[in-house]
This record gives sequence, structure tokens and C-alpha cells, in this order.
Amino acid sequence: MTRGYNFCSGPAMLPDAVMQRAQQELMEWQGTGMSVMELSHRSDEFVRVLESAESRLRRLLGVSDDFAVLFVQGGATLQFSCVPMNLMGRGGAAEFLDTGTWSVKAIKEAARYGEARVLASTKSENYLRAVRADEFTASPDAAYLHYTPNETIGGVEFDYVPDSGAVPLVADMSSCILSKTINVDDYDLIYAGAQKNIGPAGLTLVIVRRSLLGKALPGTPSLLDYQAQAENGSMVNTPPTFAIYLAGLVFEWLESNGGVAAFERLNAEKSGLLYRVIDDSAFYSNPIMPDHRSRMNVPFILADESLNDRFLAGAQEAGLYNLQGHRSVGGMRASIYNAMPLAGVEALVSYMKEFEQRHG
Amino acid sequence: MTRGYNFCSGPAMLPDAVMQRAQQELMEWQGTGMSVMELSHRSDEFVRVLESAESRLRRLLGVSDDFAVLFVQGGATLQFSCVPMNLMGRGGAAEFLDTGTWSVKAIKEAARYGEARVLASTKSENYLRAVRADEFTASPDAAYLHYTPNETIGGVEFDYVPDSGAVPLVADMSSCILSKTINVDDYDLIYAGAQKNIGPAGLTLVIVRRSLLGKALPGTPSLLDYQAQAENGSMVNTPPTFAIYLAGLVFEWLESNGGVAAFERLNAEKSGLLYRVIDDSAFYSNPIMPDHRSRMNVPFILADESLNDRFLAGAQEAGLYNLQGHRSVGGMRASIYNAMPLAGVEALVSYMKEFEQRHG
Repeated sequence: MTRGYNFCSGPAMLPDAVMQRAQQELMEWQGTGMSVMELSHRSDEFVRVLESAESRLRRLLGVSDDFAVLFVQGGATLQFSCVPMNLMGRGGAAEFLDTGTWSVKAIKEAARYGEARVLASTKSENYLRAVRADEFTASPDAAYLHYTPNETIGGVEFDYVPDSGAVPLVADMSSCILSKTINVDDYDLIYAGAQKNIGPAGLTLVIVRRSLLGKALPGTPSLLDYQAQAENGSMVNTPPTFAIYLAGLVFEWLESNGGVAAFERLNAEKSGLLYRVIDDSAFYSNPIMPDHRSRMNVPFILADESLNDRFLAGAQEAGLYNLQGHRSVGGMRASIYNAMPLAGVEALVSYMKEFEQRHG
Repeated sequence: MTRGYNFCSGPAMLPDAVMQRAQQELMEWQGTGMSVMELSHRSDEFVRVLESAESRLRRLLGVSDDFAVLFVQGGATLQFSCVPMNLMGRGGAAEFLDTGTWSVKAIKEAARYGEARVLASTKSENYLRAVRADEFTASPDAAYLHYTPNETIGGVEFDYVPDSGAVPLVADMSSCILSKTINVDDYDLIYAGAQKNIGPAGLTLVIVRRSLLGKALPGTPSLLDYQAQAENGSMVNTPPTFAIYLAGLVFEWLESNGGVAAFERLNAEKSGLLYRVIDDSAFYSNPIMPDHRSRMNVPFILADESLNDRFLAGAQEAGLYNLQGHRSVGGMRASIYNAMPLAGVEALVSYMKEFEQRHG
């Protein structure tokens, strides 16, 4: 049994310690006579699992009771619908910053429920940077301003929190949640698919300011009404119990390893090392404006693209998996979320240097 | 490590053999260097997992290519919205057979998208039986006829397939799918939350006749549009990969143990044994009309309800878990899905007899 370093953008690598614990407990959980995935979701035992996951998350990010924390299903893609359904109001408008593939998807879906205005976009610059703070002002009549702090495919990350004035700020943090400290009070709604920095696919996290609840459009499915989920402690129906348990283990692992601040430093070190090797070489390149480079998803291309397959095959042999870039971009991409240890990035850069020496 | 017999209605007991295999493979799956839950959903490996699960299910139930098989999220509760959103049409009507708690939930949600007509109901008889075949005729203008073949809470099961004429027939099979042979062609849409007879919570199965696709209402979230999911092989976005893998293992286990017909016989034996002990006793009782008793969920009450806590505590000590009835019904309930071996039901009835002798 050998676990390699998995650079997949999601579902992504999970911490070895978490996987070991899950494996140990899989057949029988804490003397209950059953697996955690066989527990009734209404049992005291599972309610404690859920409440513990929520408390740990609240501590990790500093989430006050002004916000509800929801454990739901459907991924960020379903949130692209849920956000307008819950916040836009009838005949309402929302505003967007467009910085790449995931922004575009959110905009397209919101336009089905009301007016979706693109306040600023870097499309004409091939999305090689984030939108700058002086390029937009939210309109007072907008129901919310939506942005994507980290674009997983392009590898573009905001280095600041947009000022939306009195307009609620909504962030799709799927690929950057828990990767650096944030002030949750700067936001009004944060959502994230779990399969990058939180746990397995099939769980989605929503952190929503309670004052925004209760405005869902008439056709909103009951299960997708944030207020109903908040009132029922994420148990309008059976939640994805095993995924919530695993997310709780990841939160525990984050806490026992120094919390978000420690991972922020580690992530800066990991991404700094990788970008330095790319920038110091004429063989590898990354086109994103340095201040807006993602610390989570590092795309890079080889000067000679005909070597791509050989690069990937050699990486695989070295236990460095899933480095192929997104099919819409090509080249390579190393996703280095919290669970990727520094040793994994060190192994990657040493492979990259060796490959360059041999083929550069 | 001792695994007991878990009579929970869902999340429910999973087969020991499946859990052992999942535990063995959890850290690294088939030489890939990672857990199956860390595989990219677009990888060849995971696509094979998904395709294999689908093929096995098609073989087990005899699902022809006239039907799409979808692996989605949100449970039956989200399907209560998805079905009308996808099938009802604008200003449309659907018809319902009302046989208990889950029927009522489906009706209530559908009424938010159009006219939800209750064709027949056993509410006035306290839901102690299913609707009879001569009590309803579907109207030609209805978009579909919906029913709940097995009511998990009441313990009521249809002993026939409703004749809906030319009107599409929709069945919520959450608590009875794969428990007996069916002719899928009798239906037009079958859906089921996974956490009873299929796998862990967080996965939902939809089997839908392809000719019904493409009629979603305008406000339907893209992720909930059956056609979009059918066209994208359940990968409009990242599916719940680990839950799909586990469902595939359960399907494999069903196939290698004789398929659905074998489990149909086993389920008849298990439920027959339990009802016989209940009926032969003056201490235990089940109020459901014999022909409409559920083979999956067997509610029973003790003649002296003040003994309930003692019954449950003794059961727990004997490794017989989660026998408390649903909070809306009280008493006891033994859910005995496919994964519950005959030995589990034998252990239960022997405990019941012993308890009766001591306290009856």
C-alpha cells in the first residue's frame, strides 16, 4: 500500500491521518456496534458528530452566531441556483465579478432567476488576473455582489476582499476555504463544495448571515431553502452523514495542526516554492499576474508541449498524480490544498528540475 | 470490534462483506496511489466505477436503454421537487395516491409547482392499509401518477403495481428498491434515496424513461434537470463519488448472492418470521392489514407501553440496535432491508419471545 501525492483539483487529496482514522473506525464507530455511516442521523451519536463538526468549523474560521452554518448537498453548482433563489427576490438583480470559468457558470445560472449584471470582467485579458478594487462599485439596488475568490481552473486568486458597500457580499470559496484566515464578518454568504479543502465529494458548506434568511423565491425546493435548513439544523432530510463525519475529522486535524493561520503560512511556503521554480526556469511558465496567482491551484505549461505526455508519465512513476491541466486549458496544474504536505511540493519541484535537465 | 444488528430505517445497516472490502481499500484503491474518494471524478478509474455501478444496477433490475439511470444528490426529499419540476409542465397537474407520511410530503411539495390531486387516500383509516386498485383511475390530463410503494414509517406496502393507463407512473422506491423483482417497464420514473437498500446517505438514484426528458420548468436549477444529468452521465458537476463506489459494491454483493430474486425470497422469509411471532403473541401487535404489510419496515407495539424503555435497553444489550419506532408513531419498528441477514431477524424474535416470557 503506497499513497502518492495527489495534485487533483477535486476530489482532492485528504490528510493521511484522517484517512487512517476513518479506516480504523469504518466497521464500528466508538462502541456503537455499527459504522458511523450506519448511524441514524437522528441518533444522539450522529447529532454529536454534526454539532462537533460545526463547532470546530466555527472556531477555525471565527464564525459568529450572526451566521448559520449549513451542511448541504449538490456542490457549488447547486449553490449557483440556490443563491439567487434565496437572495435575489422576485424581479431582483445581482452583480458579479467575472474572473474565469467558475464565475461564468455562477453568472449564467443566476440569470435564470433575475438580472445578472457583470460589474467587471477580465475576460478580454484571458482571465490572467483578478478584477482590481478600483474597477467596480456595487449598485445600491443589487441583492448581492458575487465573486470567486479563487478560480480553480485559471489559477487566479484575489489578494483582497471586494468592498461591496451596503450590498451583501457572496463568495464561492470552494477551492480556498480554510486555506487562509478570513474575517467572516466581511461576507454575508460563503459557500464551498467540500471536495477540495474539506472532505469527500457530496457535501457542501454554506455559511449565511441569518438576517438574509426567509426571502426564498416561491419555486425554491424546500430542501434548498436556507431558512428551512437553518431551522432544522441541516436535517430537513437525511444529510450526507459519512461526508459530514469526514469533514469533522479534517476540521479536527486542522485544529490540532495549528489552525488556519498555520496552514496559511504553509500554503504560502508551498505555492511560493512552486512558483519560484517555475519563474526561475525558461522551461516552465505560468502566465498569471504575480499578485493574483492562486496559492491553491498552480497551472504551468512546458515550453515544449510535445513533452506533456512524457512529463505526466514520469510524474506518475514518481508517485506524483493528477498533474494534467484542466481539459479547457491544457498544460499542467498542481492543486496544493491544505492536505498536500510541503514534502509533496518538494517532491514535485525536484521532479520538475530533473525533467528540465533531461529534456530542457 | 463487534457489529450488531442494526434495525434503523435509514441510514441503515450495510452488508458486512461490503464494509470489509471498503475498509481494506480505503487508504489506497487498486494500485492508484490514493483512496477511491480521492480519485478525480473525470479519471478513467472513477468513470469505470460509475459505469460498473450502473451496469450492475441495470442487470439487477432489468433496466432497458429506454431509461436513463442517474446518480444524484439530495435524497427523496429533493426528488419531491425535482419530479414536478421535470414532469409537470407549466400549469400542469399531477395525481397522487396517499398512503402515509412520505406520500403527504411528496404531495405537499408538488403542490408548489402545479395542481396536486389526491386520487385516493387511506388517511381516514389511519393509513392502516394501501390504496386498493379499484379506488382510483388516473385522469388523462395528469402529467403523472405518483405513489409510494412502501411507506417506511407506517409500514404499509402495496402488493400490486397501480395501473395508471396512459399516464406516466412515478414511484418513490426509497425503502423497497431492489427488495423484490419488478418490471421496470411498468414504471416511467423510479427514484430512491440510497441510505436504505443501496448504500450510504448522500446518494439518490433516479431511473427515468428517456421519452420524458427535456420538459423541465424554466426555474429548474440546471443540476436538477434530468435531461442535463442524462446527457452528462450524472456528471453535470462532481457526483458523490465515494457513495457511488459503495453503492457499486452493494450491487456486486447482491449479484454474487443470487440477485434480486434471491433477496425477494429472503425478505419474504425474514418479514414472515417476524410477523408470525407478532401475530402469535398477545404481547406484540401490528395494526396493518395483512396483505399490505411492509416486508421492509415492521412496526409493532407492546401491549404494555410502559415496558418500551426496558425493551429497547435489553435489545441494545443483546446487540439489536435502533428498534425504537418513528417519533410520529411510537412503539417499535424493525427495518429489515436486504443487508439484514436472516440471523438478525432470528436474534430479534428470540429476544422478543424471551422478553414476553419475562414481562408478558
